[in-house]
Amino acid sequence: MTHFSKDTECFFRSPVREIFKKVDLSSIYSFAGGYPSADTFPLEDIRSTMSKVIDKWGGVAFQYGATQGVTVLREAVAKRCGVPVERVQITSSSQQGIDVCTRVLVDPGDVVLTSNPSYLGALQSFCSYRADIRGVSHCSDIVRFEQDYVKTIEEALSEGKKIKFLYMIPDFQNPSGETLTLQERKMMVSLARKYDFLIVEDSPYRELRYEGDPVPTMYSLDPERVVHLGSFSKIFAPGFRLGWILANEDVLDKIYVCKQSLDLCPPVFDQYVAAEFLQSGLLDANLSKSIELYRHKRDVLLSLLEKYMPENVSWTHPEGGLFLFLTLPEDFDSVAFYDRALSAGVAYVAGSFFHTDGGGKNTMRLNFSFLDENRMEPGIKILSDLLR
Amino acid sequence: MTHFSKDTECFFRSPVREIFKKVDLSSIYSFAGGYPSADTFPLEDIRSTMSKVIDKWGGVAFQYGATQGVTVLREAVAKRCGVPVERVQITSSSQQGIDVCTRVLVDPGDVVLTSNPSYLGALQSFCSYRADIRGVSHCSDIVRFEQDYVKTIEEALSEGKKIKFLYMIPDFQNPSGETLTLQERKMMVSLARKYDFLIVEDSPYRELRYEGDPVPTMYSLDPERVVHLGSFSKIFAPGFRLGWILANEDVLDKIYVCKQSLDLCPPVFDQYVAAEFLQSGLLDANLSKSIELYRHKRDVLLSLLEKYMPENVSWTHPEGGLFLFLTLPEDFDSVAFYDRALSAGVAYVAGSFFHTDGGGKNTMRLNFSFLDENRMEPGIKILSDLLR
Repeated sequence: MTHFSKDTECFFRSPVREIFKKVDLSSIYSFAGGYPSADTFPLEDIRSTMSKVIDKWGGVAFQYGATQGVTVLREAVAKRCGVPVERVQITSSSQQGIDVCTRVLVDPGDVVLTSNPSYLGALQSFCSYRADIRGVSHCSDIVRFEQDYVKTIEEALSEGKKIKFLYMIPDFQNPSGETLTLQERKMMVSLARKYDFLIVEDSPYRELRYEGDPVPTMYSLDPERVVHLGSFSKIFAPGFRLGWILANEDVLDKIYVCKQSLDLCPPVFDQYVAAEFLQSGLLDANLSKSIELYRHKRDVLLSLLEKYMPENVSWTHPEGGLFLFLTLPEDFDSVAFYDRALSAGVAYVAGSFFHTDGGGKNTMRLNFSFLDENRMEPGIKILSDLLR
Repeated sequence: MTHFSKDTECFFRSPVREIFKKVDLSSIYSFAGGYPSADTFPLEDIRSTMSKVIDKWGGVAFQYGATQGVTVLREAVAKRCGVPVERVQITSSSQQGIDVCTRVLVDPGDVVLTSNPSYLGALQSFCSYRADIRGVSHCSDIVRFEQDYVKTIEEALSEGKKIKFLYMIPDFQNPSGETLTLQERKMMVSLARKYDFLIVEDSPYRELRYEGDPVPTMYSLDPERVVHLGSFSKIFAPGFRLGWILANEDVLDKIYVCKQSLDLCPPVFDQYVAAEFLQSGLLDANLSKSIELYRHKRDVLLSLLEKYMPENVSWTHPEGGLFLFLTLPEDFDSVAFYDRALSAGVAYVAGSFFHTDGGGKNTMRLNFSFLDENRMEPGIKILSDLLR
C-alpha cells in the first residue's frame, strides 16, 4: 500500500472540473465554469503570429528557456504593467502563480486570509499546503468591514498563528463579480503593513471592464508588500497557460528557485507568441472586441434574469469580468438542487463551493462569457421555471 | 520582513541554470546543459502541423483543457507506450512529473533513494520537499550492488525512516550516461516489493539509443509499483514543456487532484500539436534523424577525447542519451577548475553537483547534443590543454 504525503489528505477535487468530466458542455446550457468564449480567440491572427515567431526566432522558440520567462515577454509585460523587468516572473498559468506563492510562504497551520466567498482554485491550493483558511465576508460599511478583518486577524494571532498573506481578487471577483473600492484596498494594505503580512492580488479579470473607471491595483498602493498575479487566459487565450507575477525581489527570488524544480521554465513557444501578440498591438485590438462581446453578453444575462427570475432571487451587477452571483431564499440549497438543474439541461456552480465556512448554500455563480448568446434565454428560462 | 515557508530553507539553485544566466551560450564552447540540438527541431513540419491543428480543432485548441491532458494526446501516448489510456497523465514538462510525484509521496524527513550521482533537477525537487536523499553508487558486481542497496535501506529503516520511492534513470543516465541491465532493474523492482516502496523511473532519453538493444522498462516489470515519467523534450522539442506519467490508478488519482491546483491543465495548443505530430508519423521520422545526428556527435566527441585528453582521464561510453561522464585524477577539483575553463571559453558541469554525498569532485559531465560538430574539436582541445 502506498503511503502518500500528509498534504494529500487535504487535497480536494474541484467540483467545477468534476462537472466538466461528467457532461458534454456543448449539449447543455452551461453557466458553470469560467471559460472565455471561443469566439474571442483570433484564430487567423494567431496562425500568422505563430508563423512570424518561427521566422523570427527559429529553433530558439522550441528550445529550453530561462526560468524567469523569455526576455521579450518579460519586457512586454513590464512595459504594460509599468514596472521594472526585474520584477516580472512569467508563470505556466496564473493558477501556478497562486500555487507557488503558497508554496514559498505557507507552512501547515499558517493562516491565509481571504474574502468569503473566494476563488475555488485558490482554496484548493491553500488547502493542499494545509493552510488555515480564514474568510471575511464583504461588508459595504467600510468601518465594520475593517473591524471584521481586524477581529479575524486578532483572533488568529491570539491563537499563536502566523498570518502569511491575504488573498484577494479586487476586480470583478470570482465568484461574486464584485470590485473593491479604493478605500477598501487602502484599508487592506494598511492592515497588511500593521500586522506584517503580504497581500496576493489575483487579477485575471482586471482588463475586462465594461463600465465605470478602473480602481488602482493593490500592487500600485504598495509594490513591496503586494504580490500581483496576472493572466493571459482572459485577455488572450487560456490554452497557452501563461501568467505573470509582479513582486518584490526577495519574494521573486524564492519563486524563481522554486520554479526551477517545478517545471524549469514556462512553455517557450507560447511565450514568444504572447510577446509578439502584445508587441504588435493585436492583443489590445482583440481585447477591445472581447470587451464589447462580454459587455453585451452580461447585459443579455442581466435582462434575462430580470425577465424570468422569481421575485425572491437577487443578483450582483458586475462592472466587468465573467461572473455574476445569485442569492436565493435562505432555505434554498443550491448543491441539492444541482442534479435537478443538470437533468433539465442547465449547469451552474453552487455558491457554497466558494465559501470558506460552509455558508452560501442559497447562492449560485453564473458565468456569462462561455455560453452562446442565443442559448442564454432557453437556459435561464429552464432555470427560472425550476426555481419557481 | 517576510516569513517564508520551511521548505524554502532547503531550496537550492541549479548550478547549471546559474551558468546559463551568466554566459551567452553561443559565445563559448558549451558541453554544459542538456539542451537538444536546435538542428533537430523540424521547423517547417511544426509550422504546417500548427496550421493543421488550427484548422482541425479551432477554438478548442486555445481553450482550457482537461487536467489529465487532452484525449487525443493521452490516447497517442497510451498507444505508443502500450498501456491503457486511464494510466496516462500528461504533464507540463517531465520535471513537473518528478515534482508532483515527490509532492504526493514525500513528507519532510522521508527517504528518497537514488543513484549516486543523479539528475540535478530531481535532487532540487527532493530537497525542496525536505526529503532525506540517500544515494547508492553503481557497482558492476550485481551481488555487491544489491548489498549496497539493502544496506542503505536497512540503515534508513533502523533509524525509523519511511522510504517512499527509489528514483532511477535506467536508460543513458543523467549525468553518467550509463544504462542499467535487465538484471539490475529486476533487482531493484524486487527490493521495492520486499520493502514496499515505489520506483519512479525517469525516462527522457530512452528513445535516443545509438547502439545495442533496448532493455525492458522498469514499468514493464511492475506497472503497479513503478511510476514511469516520459518526456517530449528530447524526442520532439523542449520548448513545448510536455511530458507524461504512467502510474497505477491510486497514484495517478492523487497526481490528478494535485495538478488541478498546480496549474489546472497542461498547455493545450502544444498538446494538440504533439498529438498531431505523433499520429502523422512526423515525430518518428524526425526522431530517426535526431538519432543519426546524435550518434555521430557522440562518436565525434569520443574520438576527440581519445585524441586530446591526457592519459589519466577516463570516460563512459554511452549507448544513447546526451551525456558522457569524465573521471579525472583523484586530487582534481572540477568545481575549482570551472572558472578557469570558462575564462578559456569552455563550459561543462562539475560532477559533484550531481552527487548526493559531496563526492565526485574529480568528475565532470559533458553534453554532446548541443554544440555544433565543428565547434567540438576546438572546445575539447582547450579543455584538454588546460587539464594537462
